[in-house]
Amino acid sequence: MSEANRVQALLPRGCTPLENAVGTAPGIAARRGECHIFCLPGVPSEMKRMFEDHLRSPISAGGTAEPLVVRALHTFGSAEAEVAQRIEHLMRPGRNPAVGTTASDAVISVRIVARAEGDASAEALADRDVAEVRGLLGDLIFGAGEDTLATAVARRLVARRETVSTAESCTGGLLAKCLTDISGSSAYFLRGYITYANDAKIELVGVPQELIEREGAVSAEVARAMAEGCRLRARSDYALSITGIAGPTGGTTEKPVGLVFVGLADSAGSEVKQCLFGAHLSREAIRDRACKTALNMLRLRPLK
Amino acid sequence: MSEANRVQALLPRGCTPLENAVGTAPGIAARRGECHIFCLPGVPSEMKRMFEDHLRSPISAGGTAEPLVVRALHTFGSAEAEVAQRIEHLMRPGRNPAVGTTASDAVISVRIVARAEGDASAEALADRDVAEVRGLLGDLIFGAGEDTLATAVARRLVARRETVSTAESCTGGLLAKCLTDISGSSAYFLRGYITYANDAKIELVGVPQELIEREGAVSAEVARAMAEGCRLRARSDYALSITGIAGPTGGTTEKPVGLVFVGLADSAGSEVKQCLFGAHLSREAIRDRACKTALNMLRLRPLK
Repeated sequence: MSEANRVQALLPRGCTPLENAVGTAPGIAARRGECHIFCLPGVPSEMKRMFEDHLRSPISAGGTAEPLVVRALHTFGSAEAEVAQRIEHLMRPGRNPAVGTTASDAVISVRIVARAEGDASAEALADRDVAEVRGLLGDLIFGAGEDTLATAVARRLVARRETVSTAESCTGGLLAKCLTDISGSSAYFLRGYITYANDAKIELVGVPQELIEREGAVSAEVARAMAEGCRLRARSDYALSITGIAGPTGGTTEKPVGLVFVGLADSAGSEVKQCLFGAHLSREAIRDRACKTALNMLRLRPLK
Repeated sequence: MSEANRVQALLPRGCTPLENAVGTAPGIAARRGECHIFCLPGVPSEMKRMFEDHLRSPISAGGTAEPLVVRALHTFGSAEAEVAQRIEHLMRPGRNPAVGTTASDAVISVRIVARAEGDASAEALADRDVAEVRGLLGDLIFGAGEDTLATAVARRLVARRETVSTAESCTGGLLAKCLTDISGSSAYFLRGYITYANDAKIELVGVPQELIEREGAVSAEVARAMAEGCRLRARSDYALSITGIAGPTGGTTEKPVGLVFVGLADSAGSEVKQCLFGAHLSREAIRDRACKTALNMLRLRPLK
């Protein structure tokens, strides 16, 4: 029996197999009266790919008569309530497009869902709101659709043929990981130092030992020295640094869990941002917010 | 009006608020006849915490008469089919405990669900299978319950007061991030080098330039040199290194996407593992598998 026949033989009667381009388990398509039935494997990466390959087009074709256009704009650096307040008049119930906000790990997204008689009209309606939201939220917006803070930073660096390096303490490599999540990141990412122990801060990026003794490893001064030392050693256009207390242990009254200093250095100088992430956040969330803050500082750093 | 009253006033009649220890939105508890109703916020970290705080105990108390004991053992380094084959006789349908396997990002877990008249009997039944599965799967098993490969490695390092450092290329910091996900990781993690560009490999961990030119940056020889150079510079007991092609671009016929070399150095010497992760895997999955392979090598490294 051929491979194709064997697969066929295991299918429920009247069903057709759906090819799985990224795994071994095929999907199943069937129809019962008006109803289309699709069965996909549970592995998320396979399910998503097969949705794109086999389902998106029939669903779009057989969907509602009214075309629906969905746009998303992503912001960082402001609370959901503040973002919502600035676009309040677009968010009233029943309006078309429908505009709303969602929050995911400190990224506040604005979703615009437009309906109209034709594709072009729905697109135009959505475009008009996108432009208005962009005007109202300005550089709080770092991207649209599938953009992340890292892709926004990557776009800036690639466009200007600039490079970045990192010196991380409490984030332990997460910032560099985010910057290298993107294929082709070797165009802008040169190297990273994970200066977890104090002697690593001293040896790898040249933080003066007396500075650590005087100010503490978690301090604005050490964050600045890490960024400046990292940039010099890596010979990169920018350097980002992070030092903080990710918790849940290690906090003190003076330096509580969630206290993080983020540094940025370039040829124009350096800046440090002090953050105090909420005590209710997990270690994972504090590390995530610290990295996003660093990426956002680089995104917003004035051009030279 | 007091804060408590204001919250109370916004609750549906007959409901009680559930305190949210890690966020601002309270939950709601209600009862309708036999049915308990719990409403929790959608933020996963808040929902999970509130489930533990408010729901687990009433649900356990009001649950089925038969106690149910669930155990999970986690393995790495073998395919799900191979793991299942070795414990096949425990997996037959209808057996008590019910034993099955699940796969999540290359971690194959064995789940044991035991039912019995009393708690102690269910525990004993589960324990017996846990012991048998441990015997059959041996050191494929890296942990149980909430364990990850990183916590398994951390346990070994903390118990022996040993330290580790990392030198990463294609994983870009993810390995160090995994090792520092755990609170208290400064006890064993000293520093990490993210040697993304070739000159970073040469300058930071002393990989000879001619070695890179002769063997290529993605090679067993460079992985070994990275691990050995990293260990010397960090003065750590162990060093782990990763160099590979995470894709989706950058692959060649000789060195395809998914080819990764993982190195480990300690005072006894060094070893390198060559991996070829499936071409259907995403960049994210290849980086994840590479880090897990490194952690697993350290977990299994013979004691000195």
